[in-house]
Amino acid sequence: MALLTRITGPRDLDRLTPEQLDQLAGEIRTFLVDAVSKTGGHLGPNLGVVELTIALHRVFDSPKDRVLFDTGHQSYVHKLLTGRQDFVKLRTKGGLSGYPSRAESDHDVIENSHASTVLGWADGLAKANEVLAKDDHVVAVIGDGALTGGMAWEALNNIAAAKDRPLVIVVNDNERSYAPTIGGLANHLATLRTTDGYERFLARGKDLLERTPVVGKPLYETLHGAKKGLKDFIAPQGMFEDLGLKYLGPIDGHDITALESALERAKRFGGPVIVHCLTEKGRGYQPAEQDEADRFHGIGPIHPDTGLPIKTAAASWTSVFGDEMVKIGHDRPDVVAITAAMLQPVGLKKFAEVFPHRIYDVGIAEQHAATSAAGLATGGLHPVFAVYATFLNRAFDQVLMDVALHKCGVTFVLDRAGVTGDDGASHNGMWDMSMLQCVPTLRIAAPRDAEQVRAQLREAVGVRDAPTVVRYSKGVVGPAVPAVGRIGGMDVLREAGTDTPDVLLVSVGALAPMCLEIAELLNKQGITTTVVDPRWVKPVDEALPPLAEQHRVVVTVEDNSRAGGVGSAVSQALRDASVDVPLRDFGIPSRFLDHATRKEVMAEIGLTAPDIARQVTGLVAKLDGRMEDEPAEVARD
Amino acid sequence: MALLTRITGPRDLDRLTPEQLDQLAGEIRTFLVDAVSKTGGHLGPNLGVVELTIALHRVFDSPKDRVLFDTGHQSYVHKLLTGRQDFVKLRTKGGLSGYPSRAESDHDVIENSHASTVLGWADGLAKANEVLAKDDHVVAVIGDGALTGGMAWEALNNIAAAKDRPLVIVVNDNERSYAPTIGGLANHLATLRTTDGYERFLARGKDLLERTPVVGKPLYETLHGAKKGLKDFIAPQGMFEDLGLKYLGPIDGHDITALESALERAKRFGGPVIVHCLTEKGRGYQPAEQDEADRFHGIGPIHPDTGLPIKTAAASWTSVFGDEMVKIGHDRPDVVAITAAMLQPVGLKKFAEVFPHRIYDVGIAEQHAATSAAGLATGGLHPVFAVYATFLNRAFDQVLMDVALHKCGVTFVLDRAGVTGDDGASHNGMWDMSMLQCVPTLRIAAPRDAEQVRAQLREAVGVRDAPTVVRYSKGVVGPAVPAVGRIGGMDVLREAGTDTPDVLLVSVGALAPMCLEIAELLNKQGITTTVVDPRWVKPVDEALPPLAEQHRVVVTVEDNSRAGGVGSAVSQALRDASVDVPLRDFGIPSRFLDHATRKEVMAEIGLTAPDIARQVTGLVAKLDGRMEDEPAEVARD
Repeated sequence: MALLTRITGPRDLDRLTPEQLDQLAGEIRTFLVDAVSKTGGHLGPNLGVVELTIALHRVFDSPKDRVLFDTGHQSYVHKLLTGRQDFVKLRTKGGLSGYPSRAESDHDVIENSHASTVLGWADGLAKANEVLAKDDHVVAVIGDGALTGGMAWEALNNIAAAKDRPLVIVVNDNERSYAPTIGGLANHLATLRTTDGYERFLARGKDLLERTPVVGKPLYETLHGAKKGLKDFIAPQGMFEDLGLKYLGPIDGHDITALESALERAKRFGGPVIVHCLTEKGRGYQPAEQDEADRFHGIGPIHPDTGLPIKTAAASWTSVFGDEMVKIGHDRPDVVAITAAMLQPVGLKKFAEVFPHRIYDVGIAEQHAATSAAGLATGGLHPVFAVYATFLNRAFDQVLMDVALHKCGVTFVLDRAGVTGDDGASHNGMWDMSMLQCVPTLRIAAPRDAEQVRAQLREAVGVRDAPTVVRYSKGVVGPAVPAVGRIGGMDVLREAGTDTPDVLLVSVGALAPMCLEIAELLNKQGITTTVVDPRWVKPVDEALPPLAEQHRVVVTVEDNSRAGGVGSAVSQALRDASVDVPLRDFGIPSRFLDHATRKEVMAEIGLTAPDIARQVTGLVAKLDGRMEDEPAEVARD
Repeated sequence: MALLTRITGPRDLDRLTPEQLDQLAGEIRTFLVDAVSKTGGHLGPNLGVVELTIALHRVFDSPKDRVLFDTGHQSYVHKLLTGRQDFVKLRTKGGLSGYPSRAESDHDVIENSHASTVLGWADGLAKANEVLAKDDHVVAVIGDGALTGGMAWEALNNIAAAKDRPLVIVVNDNERSYAPTIGGLANHLATLRTTDGYERFLARGKDLLERTPVVGKPLYETLHGAKKGLKDFIAPQGMFEDLGLKYLGPIDGHDITALESALERAKRFGGPVIVHCLTEKGRGYQPAEQDEADRFHGIGPIHPDTGLPIKTAAASWTSVFGDEMVKIGHDRPDVVAITAAMLQPVGLKKFAEVFPHRIYDVGIAEQHAATSAAGLATGGLHPVFAVYATFLNRAFDQVLMDVALHKCGVTFVLDRAGVTGDDGASHNGMWDMSMLQCVPTLRIAAPRDAEQVRAQLREAVGVRDAPTVVRYSKGVVGPAVPAVGRIGGMDVLREAGTDTPDVLLVSVGALAPMCLEIAELLNKQGITTTVVDPRWVKPVDEALPPLAEQHRVVVTVEDNSRAGGVGSAVSQALRDASVDVPLRDFGIPSRFLDHATRKEVMAEIGLTAPDIARQVTGLVAKLDGRMEDEPAEVARD
C-alpha cells in the first residue's frame, strides 16, 4: 500500500505517473478484498470502478466539481481517494457508511441508495450552476442497470433538452445491476459494446465504403436490406444521440489513460455528453469474476482467498418465502412472479428455475412491476411481486391507482421490512405500513414466523379483488411462536390469565418474541397482559376494539415508522368504535436512522423489551394513581 | 347524427364505407363540441382522436381485444362507439365518467387518470395472454407527452425485450400533453414527424443516392460530416428500433384509411410494434385549433361558437399562488419554479414570463421534478415544485429519499388538494397528508384563505433545510377567515368564551368556514367550542396537546383520507403528551370516490357541518351521561 496510504485527497493523484496509477489500482483492489472480506459490504461493484474512479478524480476537481454516484454502493474507491481509508468499522456503528455520506466528507453528495436517481440530481446541480453563473462541472456515474429505471429516463429527456448546459454522464456498463441487465436498453447497449470504439469504427467505415463498387442502386439495395445494421454501423451511439446527447465510447473502463482522455473531451464539450465505459464487476478478484449470479455484489464476511462465506446462513425469511412460492406455483398455475432486477436476493430464483415462463424480471423498475401486475391480474393471473420493502416506495401511486383502484388481485411481498441497520437510512424498510395505510381495500399481513409466512402468503394469493401485502424482516427467521388461541382473525400468543387484564399488547410481525418478553417483564410487576398477533394488520381486525375494551391499556409494537403506522390505525379503529381506552404505540421514531446493527438501532430507538415494559409499567402506575405522570418518551419523533 | 345514433357497438362500424366513416367523424366532432361545451370536460384531446378511435375499433375487436387509453381523458369517442352516447350528465353524479370506467362498459380497462401507465398495463395484459395461450390483441394508445414519464420508459424497455409477444403501441403524437411536449424525446419525435412516411421516404433515399456521384471518399466525407443527419435520413425510426421495437409511421392520424392500413400491419406483425400517428389536438374546432396554450385540453362550459367561457372565473387558489410567486421571485433571486407539463394549470405562467430562466418544465415526470429539485437545492437555489396533489403520489420516494434525507429546502405546492369531485377517483387530492406523514422533517401547511396562501408560501420558501408542502383546494378561493388570537403557531378562529370549554375543533385548511359553522351549531346545543387552525399541520404544533387538555373532546376536520391523516397525527401527539382526552377525527373515508360535484361528494361522505355537529353533540352527550353511546359513524371507512 505504498502509494495508497499517501493519497490524502484527489489532488494527490495529479503527480502520479501512468505506471504509478496502475500500481495504485492494484493496491486498491488488494485493500478492498482484504477489508471487505472482513466486514462484508459491496465488493464486486467497487472492484469494477477502480480505474474509473481514479480517472474521474484526476480529470475533475472534487468537491468543487460534483462527482455523483448512483445508488452509492460503488463509492468505496471514491472514499479511499478522498481521505477515508479506515475501513475496519465499515458499515458498523461509528464507522464509515457503506454509501456516500455528507457527514463523512464534502466530496459526497447523494446518500440515497435507491437506484436511478443520479441523473435527476445532476440535472438539478447543473441548472443551479447555470443560474448562479458557476463554471463548475457536474459528472454523474450511473450503471447500465440503473438506466432501466424510469427516473433515469425522465432525467435523460430533460438533460438532452438543454444543449448548452454542461453535464457529463458516465455510463458504467458492466451489463448488470445485481443481476444481468435486461430489456430493450440492455440489447441496445450490447450493440454499442460490440463496436470497436468511435475512431477505429469510423476508419473501418471509410475502408468499407471505399471498397464498395457502387453508384446508386447496389448501395441503395444494401442500405434497404440491412437498414438497421447499417445504421448501427454508421452511428452506434443510437438512442442517446437520437435524444440529443453527445456520445463518447465505448471506452475500456480499466484503461486509465483512455478513460482520462474521454473524460477530458467530455469535460470540454460544453453540453450534455455520455461517456460509455465498459467495466467488469468483480474485476481482478477471481472468485467474483467467476460468480455468474451477482459477481459478489454485496457480501457478508468471506475467506478472502476462496470467497467462501465464513458463516453458513441459517434459514432466512427470504428462503421460506422462496420455497413456498415453488409449492404455490405447482398448486396454482395462475400464479406468476415479478422481480425488479433482484431475482436471487428476493428469493425467486427457485421459482424461476421451476417455472421459467411465469417469472418476469422487469429491471430496476418498481413502477412497471406494479402496473404490469395490474395488467397481469386483469388478464386472469395472480402476480406476486417480491421486492425490498423500502423500494416499494417507488410504486406507491401504481399500487394505489393501478392495482387497488382497479380491484386487482396482486400480492406484494416485502422483504427487508423494518430496521435493517447496516445499509443505513435509505435501506431500512420502515415506511411501507405507513405509506400503504391510505390505500383503500389493500390488506397487509405481517407474519411472525416461518409458518405464518407460508400461511399468510397462501391467504394473500387467495385474495382476488384487492392488493395484498406480506411483509417480513431481513435475515434469519426466528423460532416458531405458536398461538394459544384465536379471537376473530387474531392469534392470541399469551393469555392474561385473569378476567380483569391490564394490558392488551398488539404485536406486529417478527416482534412477537419481544412482545412475549415484555409481557413476562410486566407480569413480574403484577401487570397482567394479553398478547395478540393480528396477523393481518390492515384492516384492523374487527375483534380488536371489543377485546381492547376489556383491558385498561392498549399497547402496539411495530417495526415501522410510528407516523401513520399500525398503532395509528389501531387507535383510529378504537375511536371509531368509541373505545376510549388509553393507547400507547411503540415503533420507529420519525427520523432517518444512521447505520449500525439492527440490534444497536433497536436499542437506540427504545424498541427493546425492557424499555417498553418500563414505559408501560409507568403508564399503568399512573392509571393506578400510584405515581406521577410519566409520558411515553422513548420512541417519539 | 344520422350515422352516429345507429352505432351501438364497434361492430356497427364494419359495414360503413370510407365516405360514411368520414361523415361519422364529422358527426362525432359536432356532437363533442355541442355536448362538452354544455357540460365542460376534455374537448381538445377527444377532437384529436376521432379518426384514430374509429380505425382502432374497426381493426381490433374490443372487448376481446383490449383497447387501452393512457390517461383516459381522450376516451369520449371510444365511449360514443361503445354504446354510450348520453353525454348530458357527463362528469356529474350518476352520469358518464370523464374517464374510462369498468362499471360503465366491458370495453373500458384503465380508469386511472394519471399519465404514462398504459404501456405497463399493456405489457401485463400481453404477458397474461401469452401464459394463458390466448391470441387476443392488446393495443395501447399513448400520447407523446406521456412518453416523457418514467413508467412509460420502464414499460418500453420490457416490451421491447420480448420479440415474439404481440403488442401494438399507438403513439398519438400531437406534440403536446397539456402543453407542448418538451425534452430530448420531443425533439426526436419532431425529427420523425418531418419525414414523409416510410415508403415515400425510402423512395426519396433511392433518388438521392442515385443522383450522388460518389465512389468512396466524397460519400464518406458526407457521412462523416453529417453522420447524425444521414442516420435519421436512412432510419428515422431511431430510438424505438434501437430498443428493438418495430416502427411504423409516421401516419396521418386523421386519415382513416391510412390508419387502418397501418394498424392492420401492426396487428399482423407478431411482436411489439409502434404505430406513430400524427394528430392535431382540437382538430376541426376553430377556437381550439387557434388556442396555443392548451388547445382546449380541459374546459368548463363554453359558448360553442366562440369557445369563450360562460362564466368568468373568480380568483382561484391557483391564481393567488401564481401572483405571489411572481412577487417572491422578485424578492428572492434564488427561488426557481418547476412544473411537470402543467405550467398554466398550476399557475406558474406569470412566473415563467417574468423569470424565463428560472422556470423548469420537466415534462410528465414528477419523480424528476422532485429529485432535480434536490439537486437545485444542493446547488444553492430554492425550488418550488407546483403540482396537483394527486400527482405527487408519483414522487413519494423522491420526496423522502432525495429531498428530506438530504435536508434540502424544497417547497412542494399541491394544487387541487382534497375532494375535487368531477374528475373522479384518481383526481381527488386526498392522499398527500397521509402519504407524507412518515417523511421525517417535512412540514405541511394547509392555508385556509388567500392571505394564508401568501403568508405560508413565504414561510415555506424560508425553510432551508427541509422539505415544505403548501396544499390547497381546487377552484375559487373562499372568503378571508380572520384569526381572533394565536396560541403557539396556531391561529384561533373562535374563542369558546368560557374557562371550561367542551370541544377543541382543529380545522384544516379550506374547511375553516365549515368548522366555524360547526361551532355555531354546537353553540346552539350549549356546547362551547374553541376553533383553531394549526396552519402547519405537520408537525403537530407543540401548543396543541396542552390546549387539548383544557377541553373535554378534541375534534379534527380535514379534507384528506382519514387513514393516517392529520387526525391520526394529532391523536398520536396527544398520546405522546399523555393527554388522553377523547378525540374524533373527521375526513375522507378510505375508499375511492365516484365522480360528482365536490359538494355532493362531501355530503355523501358526511363532511358537512350538520353531520359533524350532530356527531359531536352525540359524543358530548355521552360524556355527560345524557344518552347512550352513539359511535361516530359517518366518515368511517
